[in-house]
Amino acid sequence: MDSTPHSLSLTALASLPLIQPGDDLAAVIAAALLRESLVITAQDVIVIAQKIVSKAEGRIVALANVKVSRKATILAARTGKDPRLVQLILEESKCVLRVGREVLIVEHRNGFILANAGIDQSNVAPDDPENRALLLPVNCDLSARELRAKLRVQLGVAPGVLIIDSIGRAWRRGTIGQALGAAGLTALTDLRGQPDIFGRRLRSTEVGSIDELAAGASMLMGQAGERRPVVVVRGHPVMQDDGEGAAVLQRAETEDMFR
Amino acid sequence: MDSTPHSLSLTALASLPLIQPGDDLAAVIAAALLRESLVITAQDVIVIAQKIVSKAEGRIVALANVKVSRKATILAARTGKDPRLVQLILEESKCVLRVGREVLIVEHRNGFILANAGIDQSNVAPDDPENRALLLPVNCDLSARELRAKLRVQLGVAPGVLIIDSIGRAWRRGTIGQALGAAGLTALTDLRGQPDIFGRRLRSTEVGSIDELAAGASMLMGQAGERRPVVVVRGHPVMQDDGEGAAVLQRAETEDMFR
Repeated sequence: MDSTPHSLSLTALASLPLIQPGDDLAAVIAAALLRESLVITAQDVIVIAQKIVSKAEGRIVALANVKVSRKATILAARTGKDPRLVQLILEESKCVLRVGREVLIVEHRNGFILANAGIDQSNVAPDDPENRALLLPVNCDLSARELRAKLRVQLGVAPGVLIIDSIGRAWRRGTIGQALGAAGLTALTDLRGQPDIFGRRLRSTEVGSIDELAAGASMLMGQAGERRPVVVVRGHPVMQDDGEGAAVLQRAETEDMFR
Repeated sequence: MDSTPHSLSLTALASLPLIQPGDDLAAVIAAALLRESLVITAQDVIVIAQKIVSKAEGRIVALANVKVSRKATILAARTGKDPRLVQLILEESKCVLRVGREVLIVEHRNGFILANAGIDQSNVAPDDPENRALLLPVNCDLSARELRAKLRVQLGVAPGVLIIDSIGRAWRRGTIGQALGAAGLTALTDLRGQPDIFGRRLRSTEVGSIDELAAGASMLMGQAGERRPVVVVRGHPVMQDDGEGAAVLQRAETEDMFR
């Protein structure tokens, strides 16, 4: 079965307000869709910047309340980073893979390999941005499934939901949008056993489909969804059930040649 | 200046014939655009699978003609790969980074970090696919610039041109579309000094813009452009000059923590 779409359109929501802790994100998105006369069908995906999901979920930490460990103090000196921020990064991570100037590459508790555990200090709060940090959602796939269920109530139909962030990579300069949480989407398309156009079996076997979707939608958001944190993708296959989520894209450490 | 598009549409060409060595790819694409009534403007990008660029450029090698070195024989035994294919991979590469089962991760002569130097054996030729391999273009940015110049003649306007392939990654399962060659496109968007929406300076400074475009377009191609190797992206910023190309996305070895 070839479910590759022949055409896709991507549109960033223009009328979304700033998100505050405690906001009902599904309701806010549904209201913006209505204002912008965008009717969502079951072949549409709503791509959401992680930052506004984290904000709505109240994942904001005041740095003044962070108790800095000895390990964080040492790593802060090595990296030149704020010791309180390093402490938060360590608390959010399973292990530190690399230590660089101004950066810690870690395995997040959710399994993602991320710079600084995905913790963000920009656009957190207008009053004292220096003193707060924004953590990733506790479980991005769970957040995606909950948002999808709420959107189904708001919209009468369940679009695919994808939570993304701008992520740095090995070997390549520049961040790209990457999937952190997904619901209703095929995360990994398995081509094993599919013939090529001459009937020969394909060797490269898996496509990171939701990472392609994340990168594509990210083009309309501006970096990290700073400007327009919600993008509607039309014409993309969406499943009835929630699927296995973005976690399936994490390569097991035993199969990873680059840790 | 914020050049982030508010909406984008992506359409795969449906009427492209199979490409043969020596084909004038720009003329073939222009004919398909005409058949499909797609009028190209200077805000459109034509994204092309590397495979058909390589085919048109005749980058096909008969494995029977490959002379296998001692190093290739040893690596073939370690990987379980065809020694002739390993020889080609070594010839196309500056160095081998990792040796795995059925895979060599190398730095390609063009600087890309790639599995098996991007050499492909699927869909190469209908008669004896086992015995031929398809190499990357000698210089993908040069190929993109040449295609753009020829498309300008064919279409009367110069769209952006992006050559992509499906590439494996560290840490993540599944390939995604990635930029190999570009003309007329901003490869890396530098956000340094840009304020966030609260006036705070952004810290993550660079976006791999053409990699996001490559991944997005790849959604319509099927894996490695097997099915539909040309995608038209409408509404994307395009430069008058050719720009610095995709090579700028390669992180220098001295700045890379994961080699």
